[in-house]
Parts: sequence; structure tokens; C-alpha cells
Amino acid sequence: MAKKKEHCDCLNTIKPVRDALDVISGKWKLPIIISVGVGNDRFTDIQQSIPGITPKVLAKELRELEQHRLLKRSVVGDYPVKILYTLESYADTLTPIIYSLKDWGVNHRTFVTDKCGLNS
Amino acid sequence: MAKKKEHCDCLNTIKPVRDALDVISGKWKLPIIISVGVGNDRFTDIQQSIPGITPKVLAKELRELEQHRLLKRSVVGDYPVKILYTLESYADTLTPIIYSLKDWGVNHRTFVTDKCGLNS
Repeated sequence: MAKKKEHCDCLNTIKPVRDALDVISGKWKLPIIISVGVGNDRFTDIQQSIPGITPKVLAKELRELEQHRLLKRSVVGDYPVKILYTLESYADTLTPIIYSLKDWGVNHRTFVTDKCGLNS
Repeated sequence: MAKKKEHCDCLNTIKPVRDALDVISGKWKLPIIISVGVGNDRFTDIQQSIPGITPKVLAKELRELEQHRLLKRSVVGDYPVKILYTLESYADTLTPIIYSLKDWGVNHRTFVTDKCGLNS
């Protein structure tokens, strides 16, 4: 019974964590949200701000972020039209995740460097 | 110049976030850490606590978590030997990430349900 309870307790955490990871996991989604969040609203600006992302991948990820209501794509003007990307207010809810990942990433780099003696 | 500065600011965040995602991204690593964290220390218990994970994937993920110094594999006893998995103290540093993802996942489920009218 005790074992069974442990499984339940841990599912209460595992399920929402997996829901979150389903939306923001992968290499690109959070970097895109960070980039748009600091004011990069054009496709090319977003692409240039994220090292290594290809236009094809960026287009796909932007579409998915739109579907998740985290990002808004607006068509501005007549000809030539301008496509602008801005964050939906819902993306603000990701701020605690982004900061906790950032803090951990900064700390992890120090940890790995210390463990591997790369700082000597 | 202003645009250039934006790129820099956002790289300061993007880089550590990507470092963190490189370690914990994917479907399984955090669920495994959560499961071992609540006391599942045997391979079979961990597997049973995480819906959908196969033994092959679990073995691979456990190895990677060991390499990242997040998890410890101990061989206990002589014959038959017992393999136990426990968290390294370094895994505690993931707690803020796990809680922020859990909170977001719980909230996101409500958000999606409300938007899709599934709660009516």
C-alpha cells in the first residue's frame, strides 16, 4: 500500500510537469519566447538572435507557439505587408520557468567547470 | 545599435536556458528524478511509476542522469546483487524548476480546458 501511495504522489507531480514539457520542451521554444519578449518582433530579427536556428524550424516553432496561445502573429499594413510577432499575455506565465531554468543553467555551467577542473 | 543590444541581452538568458534544457529536456528525465525523489529506488519501481516508459529508454535515461551527476547507481549485496538508484544532492537544485513546471502544467490544463470549452 505504501508503495502504491508513492506512485500516486509522484504522478500528481509527473503529470503536470509532462504537460508543461509537452508545450515548452525542445531546443527552441523558450529561446524564441525570450527573444520575442525582449522586443524582436520580425522573423529575421528573431532568427538572428537565436544561434543555430534555421528559417524552416523557426517557422514551425512559431506556428506551434501560436497554437498554444503563447505568441501572436499580426499582419500590418497593405503592401508590402509586415508580419509582426508579439507575446500573448499568457506567455508571461512562463516567466518563473524561464528564470528558474536560467538560474540553474548559470549554476550548472559553474558546477560542470568545477567538476571537470576546467577552471584550473 | 539598440537592436544589437537586444540580441546581447537575450543571449544572456537564452544560453543558460539552453544549457538547462540540454540536461533536463525531453519527456523522461524530470519524471525519473521526481520518481526517484519520492523513494522509488529500484529499476522496476521507477518504470512502473512512469506511465509509458520502456525499460530500454529508462536504462538510457538513467545512464545519462548518472553522467550529469544527478543520480547515483549503487550495487548492494553480493548474490543476488541489488541495484539501487538514489538522487545525488545536486538533483535538489532542480526543485525550483520542477515546482515551476508543475504549477504551470496545472494552470495550463485549466487554461486549455477553458479555451476549448471542455469544461461546459
